[in-house]
Amino acid sequence: MTVENVVERTRSFDPYERGCPSRDLLDHIGSKWAVLVLGELGRNGSARFSVLRRVLAGVSEKMLTQTLRGLERDGLVRRTVYPEVPPHVEYELTALGQTLREPLKALTEWSVQHVEDVIAARGDYDRRADLAR
Amino acid sequence: MTVENVVERTRSFDPYERGCPSRDLLDHIGSKWAVLVLGELGRNGSARFSVLRRVLAGVSEKMLTQTLRGLERDGLVRRTVYPEVPPHVEYELTALGQTLREPLKALTEWSVQHVEDVIAARGDYDRRADLAR
Repeated sequence: MTVENVVERTRSFDPYERGCPSRDLLDHIGSKWAVLVLGELGRNGSARFSVLRRVLAGVSEKMLTQTLRGLERDGLVRRTVYPEVPPHVEYELTALGQTLREPLKALTEWSVQHVEDVIAARGDYDRRADLAR
Repeated sequence: MTVENVVERTRSFDPYERGCPSRDLLDHIGSKWAVLVLGELGRNGSARFSVLRRVLAGVSEKMLTQTLRGLERDGLVRRTVYPEVPPHVEYELTALGQTLREPLKALTEWSVQHVEDVIAARGDYDRRADLAR
C-alpha cells in the first residue's frame, strides 16, 4: 500500500468544515429539481427527457437540462443514447444514484406530510411580526 | 365539521405539481445551511448565534441570520431571548424541527459517505468531455 493510498483511505469529510466538498454535495442532492428527477427515475426505472419534463410540471427545459447534466456528472444518473431513427435518449439511476433513493424519499415524504404545519407556522410568524410593528 | 374543514383535511400535496408548496419546502430544508443548522441544533439541543457561526465554518453572518429566520418562520427553530445583562439569544429545534432530524441525518451521512465516489465520477465525466472535444 502506498502512502497516497493510506492518506486517501483515512481522509474524512465533514460538511461543517469550510470548503469540504460534502457541503456543496448536500446542496446538489437537496435541490428540489434533483430530488424530483431522482425520485421519478427511482420509481420508474428510466425516463426520456420529454417524460421528465412533463412529470416535473413547470420545470423549464434549461433547468431540467442543467439538472440532468449535473446528476450525470456526479455519477448519479446514466444517459444512454439509442441509435434508432429518430435516436432517443433515456435517463436512469446508476448504482450510486440508487443509494440515494431512500434518503430522498424520506425527505420528500417529510415535505408532503408537514407542509401544512409549515404553512401554519409561517402564518403565525407573519401575524406576530405584524403585531410587533 | 364545516365544508372548509373537509376541504382542508382532504387536500393533498404533491411536489411534482406546479406551484405546490411542498416543492419549495424541499428546497428550503435541503439547502446546505439549513441542513447544517438543524443538524447542529439536533445534536446539541440549543446554541447561540455565535456558536453556530463558529461551528458552520465559513458561513457569513448575513447567510446565517437569513437561514435562522427562515427556519424560525417555517416553525422548525425556536428563538428565545433571555433578558439577562447582556441579553442573550438561544436557538433550538421545535417539535416539528425534531421530526426532520432523521431524514436530514440520513442525507448528511450519504454526502459524507459518497462524496469520494461523486468526485471520482466528476473526474471521469470531465475526462470523457475532454476526449470528445
